[in-house]
Amino acid sequence: MTSPAPTTLSYRQSGVDYDLIDPLKVSAQRAAAATASHLGAHGFAEVAASRGESAYVVDVGPFYLASIVECLGSKALVADEMAKLTGHSWYGAIAQDTIAMAVNDLITVGATPLVVQAYWAAGGSDWFGDGQRAQALVQGWKAACDACGVAWGGGETPALAGIVEAGRIDLAAACTGIVNPKTRLSVGDALGPGDAIVLLDSSGIHANGLSLARKLVERLPDGWLTEVAPDLSYGAALLAPTVLYSPVTEALWKAGIAPHYCANITGHGWRKLLRHAKALRYRIHTLPPVPPVLRFIQQQAGQDDEEAYGTLNMGAGFALFVAAADAERTVQVAQAQGVGARVAGVVEAGPKELIIEPLDLHFGDDALQLR
Amino acid sequence: MTSPAPTTLSYRQSGVDYDLIDPLKVSAQRAAAATASHLGAHGFAEVAASRGESAYVVDVGPFYLASIVECLGSKALVADEMAKLTGHSWYGAIAQDTIAMAVNDLITVGATPLVVQAYWAAGGSDWFGDGQRAQALVQGWKAACDACGVAWGGGETPALAGIVEAGRIDLAAACTGIVNPKTRLSVGDALGPGDAIVLLDSSGIHANGLSLARKLVERLPDGWLTEVAPDLSYGAALLAPTVLYSPVTEALWKAGIAPHYCANITGHGWRKLLRHAKALRYRIHTLPPVPPVLRFIQQQAGQDDEEAYGTLNMGAGFALFVAAADAERTVQVAQAQGVGARVAGVVEAGPKELIIEPLDLHFGDDALQLR
Repeated sequence: MTSPAPTTLSYRQSGVDYDLIDPLKVSAQRAAAATASHLGAHGFAEVAASRGESAYVVDVGPFYLASIVECLGSKALVADEMAKLTGHSWYGAIAQDTIAMAVNDLITVGATPLVVQAYWAAGGSDWFGDGQRAQALVQGWKAACDACGVAWGGGETPALAGIVEAGRIDLAAACTGIVNPKTRLSVGDALGPGDAIVLLDSSGIHANGLSLARKLVERLPDGWLTEVAPDLSYGAALLAPTVLYSPVTEALWKAGIAPHYCANITGHGWRKLLRHAKALRYRIHTLPPVPPVLRFIQQQAGQDDEEAYGTLNMGAGFALFVAAADAERTVQVAQAQGVGARVAGVVEAGPKELIIEPLDLHFGDDALQLR
Repeated sequence: MTSPAPTTLSYRQSGVDYDLIDPLKVSAQRAAAATASHLGAHGFAEVAASRGESAYVVDVGPFYLASIVECLGSKALVADEMAKLTGHSWYGAIAQDTIAMAVNDLITVGATPLVVQAYWAAGGSDWFGDGQRAQALVQGWKAACDACGVAWGGGETPALAGIVEAGRIDLAAACTGIVNPKTRLSVGDALGPGDAIVLLDSSGIHANGLSLARKLVERLPDGWLTEVAPDLSYGAALLAPTVLYSPVTEALWKAGIAPHYCANITGHGWRKLLRHAKALRYRIHTLPPVPPVLRFIQQQAGQDDEEAYGTLNMGAGFALFVAAADAERTVQVAQAQGVGARVAGVVEAGPKELIIEPLDLHFGDDALQLR
């Protein structure tokens, strides 16, 4: 272990400035909302409650249609560094991360993912000339599709010299699914006091917080090969692929459990538990174990718990808000799918806030501005 | 007008090497095809004929579901150059181009586009800090959605420093639609001898061939401001937004016309007319007018007609293969939507080939390898 970092490293210092992005987001969201009326010409309508949620939902009659596009982010840069150091490609894991970004968002609304489209934009044609890397990406992509039971419909593999940096690749995935039957819709209508909060374990950093993680490596004497646990390098730990949660949500439906709401814990960390617009208090009484790489980042970056839990997933990759009577069985269903889970908290009447009791943390209504 | 270029400039010389991309494409297509069986677990099935087509189609019971993700490519680089020279943003047009890439592909299978998702990956948060440019992108995106009657569902606006170049943006769009009623499916089952080929006019280069066009500018003494027609600069002409063809296909359906097949004329130019797997001869007897910017590129790059028509759209942005009896009315319906159109050719029994009679050109079965 290296010595603690001398100064705190915040997410903004690592290069992502949400203040510059957010005004555009607001403007785009308003413009987007104004286009919903077009669906009427086809006899359809949007599910207005899905605006601002992780996937967009349209009522097409017999069922709801859900769609999403999601970006991997900068995690591929870590794979590139580790390939140099280890001599083998990490793009199999990266492929799973990319699909997880899309699928884990799509399922929050109750959708069954059906089709994934690949978006692989390289800095030049030569990216695809590295056969080992390209095959790792293809096989990892297929394996993740197999794990989620989705069809890989096709995609786009442009060479974008001048836009994407030489030697790099911009990875994204689009996913389309249906909410069928319509009673599976989980955009929060049924969310309310008394619901249990079940947290599903993450496998590590997943694909959010990588800008911070990459910035941090500059402080580590052994860089990417610094051990975060015995025989586990920082780079390898970061590259643990994101858990695919759709097998859990599909199994829950088969077990007769319909979550009232779901939150994919990505950017903004646990603040994502405040995602729904309703005024409700989320009280956490039990914490999941923190993956070694996240504890390491927290320590090395000198983050207090508020910064860490407000930025990183800290062991919780996905939140299910279910009826209290379904809570224990939800945990069992998840575990049967190989995903660690625990009843971690409860929803209460009250002002919109998140209380993480074991850490004495409080996040208020102003902690997450997504709409 | 500048003097003719001394040497021919081919597409490979401009930096895109399809030989390096295609082996990956083949591998990815095989892996993707193997995932189709997952749909059976949900009671659905892919439309196998859509594999290798411009959009992927799944039979979900009451109708078909179609989805796609498409990239703008390098056209944004031209917008960036022209913004420096003109002082205003061209991203309104660029937004339409991006949506056109997705929508014009989706409609080839007979789908009505319903939802568009935006993928705007910038080289850094500061890209979004340029308010004029960001607003042009937002408003252009909305206007294109309005023109196509689609709902803008949401999207992703990542800041990807280290992957996307500083000051640049990687733009893509995902589109989901339905084929409803199922009889609208146009994956070529009904394509056959006697069908008429109706070509819809392009507005210029659209968004394919831009690598070549950007390379060419280095040869022009006045660069982007070189006139390609009176008061029309090379840069402005290149930035004419891609025609959105979905109003035409929707109007055709309302007029009772169901195309047997459609081809979006993008990369590979007119060779895209050979897209369908059937052994058929496509005989072109009438050419659309060539937009000045495409004639200019052909001349400046020293391309013969085979290279030009095999690479660029040369005035034909979209091809409709319709029953001969519907041909003239198809033209009228398109023109009523403000899109120039003409009966340009006929489908014949024969080996797979494209004959462009007015230019004495012939493209054989080996001219287009997409599957």
